[in-house]
Amino acid sequence: MEKAEAERKVEESMEEDDQVVNPWQVSAKDGGKIDYDKLIDKFGCQRLQQSLVDRVQRLTSRPPHVFLRRGVFFAHRDFEEILNVYERGEKFYLYTGRGPSSEALHLGHLVPFMFTKYLQDAFKVPLVIQLTDDEKCMWKNLSVEECQRLALENAKDIIACGFDISKTFIFSDFDYVGGAFYKNMVKVAKCVTYNKVVGIFGFTGEDHIGKVSFPPVQAVPSFPSSFPHLFSGKDDLRCLIPCAIDQDPYFRMTRDVAPRLGYHKPALIESSFFPAMQGETGKMSASDPNSAIYVTDSAKDIKNKINKYAFSGGQDSIEKHRLYGANLEVDIPIKYLNFFLDDDAELEHITKEYGAGRMLTGEVKQRLIQVLTEIVERHRRARAAVTDEMVDAFMAVRPLPNMFD
Amino acid sequence: MEKAEAERKVEESMEEDDQVVNPWQVSAKDGGKIDYDKLIDKFGCQRLQQSLVDRVQRLTSRPPHVFLRRGVFFAHRDFEEILNVYERGEKFYLYTGRGPSSEALHLGHLVPFMFTKYLQDAFKVPLVIQLTDDEKCMWKNLSVEECQRLALENAKDIIACGFDISKTFIFSDFDYVGGAFYKNMVKVAKCVTYNKVVGIFGFTGEDHIGKVSFPPVQAVPSFPSSFPHLFSGKDDLRCLIPCAIDQDPYFRMTRDVAPRLGYHKPALIESSFFPAMQGETGKMSASDPNSAIYVTDSAKDIKNKINKYAFSGGQDSIEKHRLYGANLEVDIPIKYLNFFLDDDAELEHITKEYGAGRMLTGEVKQRLIQVLTEIVERHRRARAAVTDEMVDAFMAVRPLPNMFD
Repeated sequence: MEKAEAERKVEESMEEDDQVVNPWQVSAKDGGKIDYDKLIDKFGCQRLQQSLVDRVQRLTSRPPHVFLRRGVFFAHRDFEEILNVYERGEKFYLYTGRGPSSEALHLGHLVPFMFTKYLQDAFKVPLVIQLTDDEKCMWKNLSVEECQRLALENAKDIIACGFDISKTFIFSDFDYVGGAFYKNMVKVAKCVTYNKVVGIFGFTGEDHIGKVSFPPVQAVPSFPSSFPHLFSGKDDLRCLIPCAIDQDPYFRMTRDVAPRLGYHKPALIESSFFPAMQGETGKMSASDPNSAIYVTDSAKDIKNKINKYAFSGGQDSIEKHRLYGANLEVDIPIKYLNFFLDDDAELEHITKEYGAGRMLTGEVKQRLIQVLTEIVERHRRARAAVTDEMVDAFMAVRPLPNMFD
Repeated sequence: MEKAEAERKVEESMEEDDQVVNPWQVSAKDGGKIDYDKLIDKFGCQRLQQSLVDRVQRLTSRPPHVFLRRGVFFAHRDFEEILNVYERGEKFYLYTGRGPSSEALHLGHLVPFMFTKYLQDAFKVPLVIQLTDDEKCMWKNLSVEECQRLALENAKDIIACGFDISKTFIFSDFDYVGGAFYKNMVKVAKCVTYNKVVGIFGFTGEDHIGKVSFPPVQAVPSFPSSFPHLFSGKDDLRCLIPCAIDQDPYFRMTRDVAPRLGYHKPALIESSFFPAMQGETGKMSASDPNSAIYVTDSAKDIKNKINKYAFSGGQDSIEKHRLYGANLEVDIPIKYLNFFLDDDAELEHITKEYGAGRMLTGEVKQRLIQVLTEIVERHRRARAAVTDEMVDAFMAVRPLPNMFD
C-alpha cells in the first residue's frame, strides 16, 4: 500500500465513524460523545462482559473494583485467556505506563494506576511501569532533562497510589532502553513497515523519525524478555496491560508482531476516558486547568472548580428541575461519582433522586466535593511521604525475588 | 515535501547522474566506473587537495599513508578544520565503524581500518569503533544472536589491525545503545523528518521502521557526549570520521542536525571503493567469493584468484601487448598494487613498464600475489593472537585515561 493511499484510508475511516481516538487525539464528531461501541468495533477488541467481572470476583475472592463494576474498564483483548492462565495456577505480569508531560496529574491520570494497584493486590502479580520520557521529549517541545525531571515527579504520584515495592519495577525509557530491551525494539521494528504505522497512527511525511521509531519502545515491555533482571527464564509469562483505550493502537501493533517473534500476545483491559469538567466529549485538556481536578488542587480549588465548572444536567430552574429531573446522560457530577463514590447503594440513591428531580445539582456537587477532596487529600498525604530514596528504590534495576508471592 | 515527491526527486537525481551510491548500493551506469568527481558534486563534499596531504605530513612529522599519497582517501568535509584544531594544540577523536554482516573480511573491508590505525598513530588521538550489529540484524535476515556473534568475530579482525588499546573503544550497538547514547539518538531523531530520510536514503513505505529508525544510531557516535565514560566534560571535542564515501549520507544528515543540538559537525575523510577482482564497477560482493581476496584466503587461494579472476588490462597476445602496452585504466592488478604496494618508486616502475608493454600481466600479477600474500599472512598471524579476553578489553565500557598522550 502506498503511503498516500494509507493516509487516505486513515482519513476515510475517520470520516466513516466521525470520531478520532489515538494516543494523541480523542475527539468525537461536533464535540459529541465518544461512541465506545463503535470504537470496540473499529479497534476489534471485545466488550468486557459481566460474566468476566463475576469470574474476577470468584478468582480473587474479593469484590471487583468500582472501575470494573461500573464499566469504566469496559473493553479487553484476551483478558479471558489471562483468567484461564491464572485459574490454572500460573501467574502473569502487569504492564502499564505514563507519558510524563506535565508536573501535576489530574484525576483522569490516576484512573489506570488506581485500577492497576487493585489488579496487583487482587492477583498478587508483578508490575512494570514505563515512563515514556523519550516519547514526551519527541512529541512535546521539551528537553531530555525536563522530561527526566517530569518522569521522576510523576513517579512519586504513581508510587503514592500504593504499589507494592516487592512486586513493582518503575523505569524511564531514557534510563532503561538498552540491552535486552533494545534488542526487542529492533526485533519489533523489523516486523512493522512504515506504511503499517501510517495506517495505525496516521503519521505523515512531515513527522520526524523519532515518532516513527517510538511504537516499538512502547511495545516491548509486553514481552518478559525485555526485563532480564525480572523474568529471566520466564519467556512464557503472560502480560496484561491495563490502559485507556486510546493506547490500543500501540498494542494492536504489538499483538500483530508478537507471534512472529515467538512471543505471546499481550492481553489488554481498557478503560473509557475520564470526562472533562465541561462535559463528556473526550479526554481532559492539560492546557485548561479548569477542565480537570488536579491532585495538587486544594480543598478550596476543588470546591470552586466543581461548583463553577462541573457541567450540570440539572434544569434551568428549580421548578423545572423538580418537574423533569436532571439529565444524567450529560451530568458531570454524576459521572464523577460513578468513578469515585465506592458505595453502590449511595450512588444508586443519588442517581435515582437526582434523576427524579428530588435532589438538586448543588446537593450532588456538595457530595462530589466531599468525595474528591478526600481522594485528593489522601493522595497528597501519600505523595508527601514518597521520598527520593523511595523513587530510586522502585526504579532500581533489580530482581524481585518475591514478586509472585 | 510529500513522500511521493521525495521519491521522485531521488529517482530523478539517480537518472541525472547515472550512478547510485548509498550505504546499501554502489552502482554506476551500465556497469561502468563510479565517477567520483560527480559524486563529490552531488554529495557536496570537497576533494582532498595535495596541499592538505602535505599539511598532514608536516603536522605529524611522518610520511602520509599510502592511501593519502595515492588518493584512495580522496574527499573530505572540514578536514582542514580538524588540522587547524590540531595545529592549535587541541585534540580530536576518530570514529569509524563496521556493519558485521559476514564472518570473513575482504581486503576492501580492511582499508578504512588500516587508514584509521595510521591516523590514530600519527595524531595520537582516541578512537571509537561502532559495530552496527543492530543495522545488520534489520537489513539482512539475521538473528540478533548471529549479528552479535559476527560483531565479535569482526572485532578480532579490527583489533588485528593494531589499534592501541589505551586509546580505542570498540562497541556493538546491541551492547551499548542506552543512556547518553540513546538520549542523543532521540535528540537527532527529533530533528529529521521522514521525508528527509526518504530524500537521503531512498526508503519506501514498504521498508520497515527499523530502517527509518537507524540513521540516528550511526549519527550519534559523532558527538562526544554519547560516550560519557570517555569524553565527559569534553563536549567541544571535534570528531573526524574516516570512512568509504558510501557512508556520506549518514553524516550529511548528522552534520545537518549537529548545530541544532549545539554540537560540532563531525569532519569526514572519505575513500573511494576498493575495486572488485572483475573490474572497477563498484564495491566487492560478499555473495561472490571470487570477487575479492579475503583475509582468510590461503596463499594458494590468493595465487589462484589473482591469476584466474583479477581483470587484466593487458593485450590479447604478447605481440600486441609489447606493441600497445596494458590498459592501466581497467587493469585490476595495477589498481590493487596502487592500494597495497607501499614503495612509490617500485609502483612507478611497474606502472611505467607495464603500460609500455615491457612487463606482462603475469609478471605484475606475480608481484601482486607476493604483496597480498604478505598482507594477508601478517593479518592472519595478528588475528590468531587476538584472544576473547582482548576483545572484552577493547569493548569494556571504561575510561581511557591516557587517550590523549
